[in-house]
Amino acid sequence: MSDKDKIRVAVIGAGRIGKIHIENLVNKIPEAEVVCVADIQVDKTEEWAKKIGVERVISDPTEAIQDPNIDAVVICSPTNTHADLIIKAAKAGKDIFCEKPIDRDLSRIETALEEVKDAGVKFQVGFNRRFDHNFRKIRLLVKDGEIGDVHIVNITSRDPNPPSIEYVKSSGGIFVDMTIHDFDMARYLTGSEVIKVYAVGNVLVDPKIGEVGDYDTIIATLEFENGAICTIDNSRKAVYGYDQRVEVFGSKGSAIAYNDRPTNVVVSTQDAVYMDKPLYFFLERYKESFVQEMQDFIDCLKNNEEPLVTGKDGFQAMAIAVAATKSAKEKRPVRLEEIL
Amino acid sequence: MSDKDKIRVAVIGAGRIGKIHIENLVNKIPEAEVVCVADIQVDKTEEWAKKIGVERVISDPTEAIQDPNIDAVVICSPTNTHADLIIKAAKAGKDIFCEKPIDRDLSRIETALEEVKDAGVKFQVGFNRRFDHNFRKIRLLVKDGEIGDVHIVNITSRDPNPPSIEYVKSSGGIFVDMTIHDFDMARYLTGSEVIKVYAVGNVLVDPKIGEVGDYDTIIATLEFENGAICTIDNSRKAVYGYDQRVEVFGSKGSAIAYNDRPTNVVVSTQDAVYMDKPLYFFLERYKESFVQEMQDFIDCLKNNEEPLVTGKDGFQAMAIAVAATKSAKEKRPVRLEEIL
Amino acid sequence: MSDKDKIRVAVIGAGRIGKIHIENLVNKIPEAEVVCVADIQVDKTEEWAKKIGVERVISDPTEAIQDPNIDAVVICSPTNTHADLIIKAAKAGKDIFCEKPIDRDLSRIETALEEVKDAGVKFQVGFNRRFDHNFRKIRLLVKDGEIGDVHIVNITSRDPNPPSIEYVKSSGGIFVDMTIHDFDMARYLTGSEVIKVYAVGNVLVDPKIGEVGDYDTIIATLEFENGAICTIDNSRKAVYGYDQRVEVFGSKGSAIAYNDRPTNVVVSTQDAVYMDKPLYFFLERYKESFVQEMQDFIDCLKNNEEPLVTGKDGFQAMAIAVAATKSAKEKRPVRLEEIL
Amino acid sequence: MSDKDKIRVAVIGAGRIGKIHIENLVNKIPEAEVVCVADIQVDKTEEWAKKIGVERVISDPTEAIQDPNIDAVVICSPTNTHADLIIKAAKAGKDIFCEKPIDRDLSRIETALEEVKDAGVKFQVGFNRRFDHNFRKIRLLVKDGEIGDVHIVNITSRDPNPPSIEYVKSSGGIFVDMTIHDFDMARYLTGSEVIKVYAVGNVLVDPKIGEVGDYDTIIATLEFENGAICTIDNSRKAVYGYDQRVEVFGSKGSAIAYNDRPTNVVVSTQDAVYMDKPLYFFLERYKESFVQEMQDFIDCLKNNEEPLVTGKDGFQAMAIAVAATKSAKEKRPVRLEEIL
Repeated sequence: MSDKDKIRVAVIGAGRIGKIHIENLVNKIPEAEVVCVADIQVDKTEEWAKKIGVERVISDPTEAIQDPNIDAVVICSPTNTHADLIIKAAKAGKDIFCEKPIDRDLSRIETALEEVKDAGVKFQVGFNRRFDHNFRKIRLLVKDGEIGDVHIVNITSRDPNPPSIEYVKSSGGIFVDMTIHDFDMARYLTGSEVIKVYAVGNVLVDPKIGEVGDYDTIIATLEFENGAICTIDNSRKAVYGYDQRVEVFGSKGSAIAYNDRPTNVVVSTQDAVYMDKPLYFFLERYKESFVQEMQDFIDCLKNNEEPLVTGKDGFQAMAIAVAATKSAKEKRPVRLEEIL
Repeated sequence: MSDKDKIRVAVIGAGRIGKIHIENLVNKIPEAEVVCVADIQVDKTEEWAKKIGVERVISDPTEAIQDPNIDAVVICSPTNTHADLIIKAAKAGKDIFCEKPIDRDLSRIETALEEVKDAGVKFQVGFNRRFDHNFRKIRLLVKDGEIGDVHIVNITSRDPNPPSIEYVKSSGGIFVDMTIHDFDMARYLTGSEVIKVYAVGNVLVDPKIGEVGDYDTIIATLEFENGAICTIDNSRKAVYGYDQRVEVFGSKGSAIAYNDRPTNVVVSTQDAVYMDKPLYFFLERYKESFVQEMQDFIDCLKNNEEPLVTGKDGFQAMAIAVAATKSAKEKRPVRLEEIL
Repeated sequence: MSDKDKIRVAVIGAGRIGKIHIENLVNKIPEAEVVCVADIQVDKTEEWAKKIGVERVISDPTEAIQDPNIDAVVICSPTNTHADLIIKAAKAGKDIFCEKPIDRDLSRIETALEEVKDAGVKFQVGFNRRFDHNFRKIRLLVKDGEIGDVHIVNITSRDPNPPSIEYVKSSGGIFVDMTIHDFDMARYLTGSEVIKVYAVGNVLVDPKIGEVGDYDTIIATLEFENGAICTIDNSRKAVYGYDQRVEVFGSKGSAIAYNDRPTNVVVSTQDAVYMDKPLYFFLERYKESFVQEMQDFIDCLKNNEEPLVTGKDGFQAMAIAVAATKSAKEKRPVRLEEIL
Repeated sequence: MSDKDKIRVAVIGAGRIGKIHIENLVNKIPEAEVVCVADIQVDKTEEWAKKIGVERVISDPTEAIQDPNIDAVVICSPTNTHADLIIKAAKAGKDIFCEKPIDRDLSRIETALEEVKDAGVKFQVGFNRRFDHNFRKIRLLVKDGEIGDVHIVNITSRDPNPPSIEYVKSSGGIFVDMTIHDFDMARYLTGSEVIKVYAVGNVLVDPKIGEVGDYDTIIATLEFENGAICTIDNSRKAVYGYDQRVEVFGSKGSAIAYNDRPTNVVVSTQDAVYMDKPLYFFLERYKESFVQEMQDFIDCLKNNEEPLVTGKDGFQAMAIAVAATKSAKEKRPVRLEEIL
């Protein structure tokens, strides 16, 4: 591909997820070019960026956003900076990819999305799991009517280890930092909107998590406009690794996505018949989905199409997370309209 | 075994489940002898009973209960007759096996169980699934600490086809006739008591079920004394057959019971890789568990031990079912103490 | 069933397999009645037989065979007695079920089968695995054309532990006492005749087995009239239990029978994801197949139909075993016609 | 990585497999640089090469081999050119990666490998399956003693569709173009040398294959120095896709590698419970193994280590293929020493 046809991208924030996006854009998506990376830690980032062939590293994201040489920005900076960056980028006419959550304040999300709308730029939220091979297949089965009308959705999502207490303190809580992925998954798989949430949270893994006001073990139930009902269970700690399964059950059958494993080897010994544990954590499990979501974003820009995961999707998932948090605190079901 | 050492049993009610118990007692449990069967339809029952070698068929259950030649009664008559029969049998000093539910009225259950207690007779409720090979194994894993502290329980239980509308009208509703098994399973697997229920019901399978005031698709969440939380999903109609799975997740891992299938054959063709559907319905799936529960009952009588499934278990499961029904109707979580 | 309609059976030999057949006939096959058991150890057998309700135990099989009150004999005595008993029973006009192998001498088998033919009695050989749920399903798939023309068959059959050296010394060797089941399975699954065998045997489990002239680890390849080719592998010792799998691969696909396990529970821990080992040995794995083969035998007698496993099947399997033994000793492929 | 530290590679032959290696070297192996590609079809190759960033395309491989700027050559040209190119490259002091088979003539392989030895250059053969995640795991289990002494190996390897008749005519036959991978796999998994082969071939898929003197369905059995025995089955046409499984069975247990599938989704409908077919063919199934083998080659050059797959491995696999071909034609077991 000749360089002049490439989508020129600036990535804002080169933390863990930012680095993943940069590497994928550089190594796996020939239609894109990472023109510049903006990160507060310029020196450290520069060293890393050079190795993979990105020359320009700056500290000020606004500089990147306003660079006329840039087509699109990929926002991977801390959550509280998202809304402002989105607004600036929209005003500068840049297409936008933004990591989830867009913001923890629903009205700020609305404001940002209005700017996006007014500017007429493309906008995609980083719900990468929609691009996972297993879940995408289930979505296609639902869409093609193979499962019939959706009646029940069951989502299991458990991390191998809790994040640091520092992270828990500032993340907005388990429903905002973890279950939000499952809320989006439930909307994606059913193709319907949530009308009511009931959530139960407990502290069973680590009392420190409770001390800062969060839960480590939760169940949420969702009711959808189309009548479907959904259970979600989350744990901050599954000792056997990252547990990521979903089931959609409908009038014509059921589709279950089981965990991926490093190998398909089964060993039989005097003690047991055993196989690999699930892929360890999200970097392993969703590795390919991160490539796919970015590829899809770049393809949308090239083909002038709407991204699969829109600003509305980012807003709705956050709204459900807010309702779930409220439900768990007030110990009652919460209708989504209450918090909109 | 010499006949005089056998437990002499009278079975009351020779409907579908009654016949199963009679056949198992006759053919598979040498320590028991079915001395008599009581059923309103004497002629029809007599014809069937003779074929399998039971000679005495009577119409009046009281006659069986008061027969000094009888050690124990197995009550399989309609639910509304259970409490009276239990009381009569207890007063007559007979050990009692009673099909679930004991009664739909909690105070009637209490009255009956007090008589049982006063009489000092053995009492077992027909929650046969506790004797299923898969679920029993999970219970043992939990009991032996292999899963650690229980954090989350997920139960999926779906029938291949809805019962008749007549049945739905009189059964007490899906929580009483179907989910009650899962309520008992949740208590059995966790070894803890439920303190709160939230249930959501919808009519997605057949509008006629809604017209008579019941649901065909439900989700229930349970909170336990020990902190564990549980999801249950039920459907009256899974087109692929009887879906009976549970998962217990705890601090040391997870144990999942998958469905049983008629064969372990996997076929690969140009179209797909496929295997057998689950065993069709409860007669196939729980065939062996019905033998095991009756064997256990007879063993308890012979060895003067307490049955595994007690009157309290029957009461508690019904109490949760009542709470779940209330929760679904009133659209709010219901604490168990509200209805006790 | 009235007693006069029952097939009256005498069982000759009440060792391990004889007891299985007696119990199944008594407890699970109402159309049959075990009138008498013949065993050298009369006293010991009598004690056991009474418990399950068989009254008559005698020492002389001829007495049973000539009893006009007997319809059929089930021969479970040592292999070297089979041929004589078959001849006597045929001459007495009794239908015959005979455990495998019919004899270790092919000409003696032929002589016995001629008597059977002349007498016009029914004859079934005890290749119980044909009645196994998994293998029967694969046979049906082949028969119904679901797999297309059969190209390749792979059979794995491994015991959990070697038999005693005494047994190995007198059994005729691994091809005769163990692989013979797989030879029959290969013929059953393909529906075709073997024309050539190549067998390789090693002593890898226990040198004592080699010292008495046998192998404990073998591979055999078979070529069939219809062009199909087959591999069989056997081991006297699989530390994880009884390994019984087959695959049929053809022009339209493949069907694989995996092992049966005690439960379908999968446990995930910090160490591994594990499940049950296969059912321990043939008594567990083929329990139901022993019932089915005897039921089928009795049904054939009642309905005057040919048994599924004929004398020819017994002869052919033994002929392949003889050829395989010769092949392994002479280290060359052996055509079946060489030894016929 | 600074360019001067990179291994400078010339790739000879830009057909299907050559292109795979070039893409992997360019996109996934930062320690290597593809300096030049040699292919007869210069124009067509140039167009393709430019797109992925390789500038220099020449027609004469000798030019590449003798270029002092080149560290290593990757030989992907037709088999009959391999030996000469190896000899030239060795003489020029280049390290060598050569696609399998090295040659179809064993003495030519020997000659080439002697030159390699004399020159002291590194040499790796393209048995990519050794780098497959599943098979590598089994090899590690064997090596670590988890399976104990190896007794039996079963390898199933079936293609989704036969190659063209032109290919079959010139490939050397199924044992040379297809089973050779399994011969290498058997040596790799057991860590032992083959002493005897018996092979059976049939024409069941397409009579045209038989007309040009080849087979489309084969079974081979191998005997190893360490006593292990092995079965291999191959088909040119498995309608359900690429079937690649192995089992190693030993004194301490068994390890089985099952097929990889595009997703882990299981769908249950009224008709069946089904899942994805295996990954379609070797490009999908062994995609990652091609990266790994080239990474390993480059790593060996950088670290001055011996490659995992040596010239001897290339020679031995071909020797077994020759013996198997002879065995199938002459219908007798062939000792490897016969053809050495």
